[in-house]
Amino acid sequence: MTYCVAMCVDDGLVFLSDTRTNAGVDHISTARKMTVFEQPGERVLVLLGAGNLALTQAVLHELSEPSNPDRPSLWTAPTMPDVARVVGQAVRDVHQREARALQEFGVDFNCSFILGGQIAGTANGQGANGEGGARTLNRPRLFMIYSAGNFIESSSVNPYFQIGESKYGKPIIDRVLTPATPLGEAAKCALVSMDSTLRSNLSVGMPLDLLVYETDALRVTRFVSIDQDNAYFEMIHRTWGERLRQVFAEIPDPNWRDGAEAPLQRPERSLVLHRSPLAGAEAGHTTPAQTLAQDDKARPQR
Amino acid sequence: MTYCVAMCVDDGLVFLSDTRTNAGVDHISTARKMTVFEQPGERVLVLLGAGNLALTQAVLHELSEPSNPDRPSLWTAPTMPDVARVVGQAVRDVHQREARALQEFGVDFNCSFILGGQIAGTANGQGANGEGGARTLNRPRLFMIYSAGNFIESSSVNPYFQIGESKYGKPIIDRVLTPATPLGEAAKCALVSMDSTLRSNLSVGMPLDLLVYETDALRVTRFVSIDQDNAYFEMIHRTWGERLRQVFAEIPDPNWRDGAEAPLQRPERSLVLHRSPLAGAEAGHTTPAQTLAQDDKARPQR
Repeated sequence: MTYCVAMCVDDGLVFLSDTRTNAGVDHISTARKMTVFEQPGERVLVLLGAGNLALTQAVLHELSEPSNPDRPSLWTAPTMPDVARVVGQAVRDVHQREARALQEFGVDFNCSFILGGQIAGTANGQGANGEGGARTLNRPRLFMIYSAGNFIESSSVNPYFQIGESKYGKPIIDRVLTPATPLGEAAKCALVSMDSTLRSNLSVGMPLDLLVYETDALRVTRFVSIDQDNAYFEMIHRTWGERLRQVFAEIPDPNWRDGAEAPLQRPERSLVLHRSPLAGAEAGHTTPAQTLAQDDKARPQR
Repeated sequence: MTYCVAMCVDDGLVFLSDTRTNAGVDHISTARKMTVFEQPGERVLVLLGAGNLALTQAVLHELSEPSNPDRPSLWTAPTMPDVARVVGQAVRDVHQREARALQEFGVDFNCSFILGGQIAGTANGQGANGEGGARTLNRPRLFMIYSAGNFIESSSVNPYFQIGESKYGKPIIDRVLTPATPLGEAAKCALVSMDSTLRSNLSVGMPLDLLVYETDALRVTRFVSIDQDNAYFEMIHRTWGERLRQVFAEIPDPNWRDGAEAPLQRPERSLVLHRSPLAGAEAGHTTPAQTLAQDDKARPQR
């Protein structure tokens, strides 16, 4: 498995990926899932891949050395949506070559990508080489590309994408990330999200690749491989866990109205208790002389 | 979908379930997933079910009105592992009746259960009726029963089980729950875990059923249906989110060594930055006059 997350905020883009690959828990290895395509001053593209490693690498090979040089490439596509189309087309090319052979071995065509970046443009939409000239800047954009080669773009109400083992690390992003989140805070959020995932799932592993792209930089300035000795990540790992437990301890435990051993300190926060044993509400569920406890309130349909 | 969680700590058992059922997001309804079997003074059994609702209900019907009255039932099985076997057998009976017909409609035989409870026993292992007599108390125990009718028991290193949409709510349990966790704190942990799940997944919904069983009570004393007006859960929802964001804000953002705008306040916590553009490490990935940024460190195999 894999965990990759990318965020698109007003100040720029954040990309974070793990490097674990596995074919069963007894065959674990390390592979880079982040690939950066940079032409300083003109474009920065970052691609995160998840799924079958042979497939994501086949797509990367197709992108690096296109089988049809007449089509637009990562380096020539004039806008970010055009680049997303190039990646989607590469996924479809690989599907055409590989899917049938894999199917014979019962292997799903399983790969997905996150693409983000920024391209300097001119008024007529052509990419400008170098930093001089009358170029205009298109804003950084973020896309998710599916196995079928189709794709969606992030938006202000959904400023991030995850691929791979996404669920463990989703709640913290949902709670803190908005387009206004500063870039450093977004990077911290991605690392906290990764920390939760690492803790709960063996198939996601260190080292991590983190790239933080500042809007209009048009070059890679913040790119780091985080291993177990990284003091910042170690601090996040330790502090977040400790503080989470502390916050948890500070929230009062539930008080039950009936409990002499649990005095009613906060009536407004008490759970309403339905005293048991309650009569079985459905005849079929009640055995003579034995009680099937059931909530006695009719449950509203919501 | 569904989210159910149950915990087995030294002081007792905690059970929490949502009530949302859905067949697609446009067909959402409410169903109870917790069923309590109580014979006060003799046994308390709690069953949480997830999966195909028709299947989990079929298993409950089989348990309430056994098709073969000569076999041990929930009410006569002398020990908790025996009860787990009764539930497993009911799952297998339903499988035998239903699986083939469902298969013709492409419906998986998908159901799983968490079973927990305590049974008063006597020296010869027979259940004792009533509270008098020379009964011995078996400790409360917790089991997870799979679609195939097989089951596993919780242990001190894994004192909880989840079924349904389990991933969003797992990190907080992994961080705080141990067998020594007091019962009220365990209930709070289950509610925080549920809160994270509710926030991230539409297919899990209120109201919630919470049952807290105190070791050796042999009756249901703490059983509540939590709806959107429940002050305690509303307080958890609000406080946990707020405090999480606060803790998050208190953790320092990463500092980058090169950034004049981000002075190096904590050198020991800084991320090590690999300045870019870096030379393409693999020839095949480098396009002339364009750079594929690659980490220049060889990546160790872990």
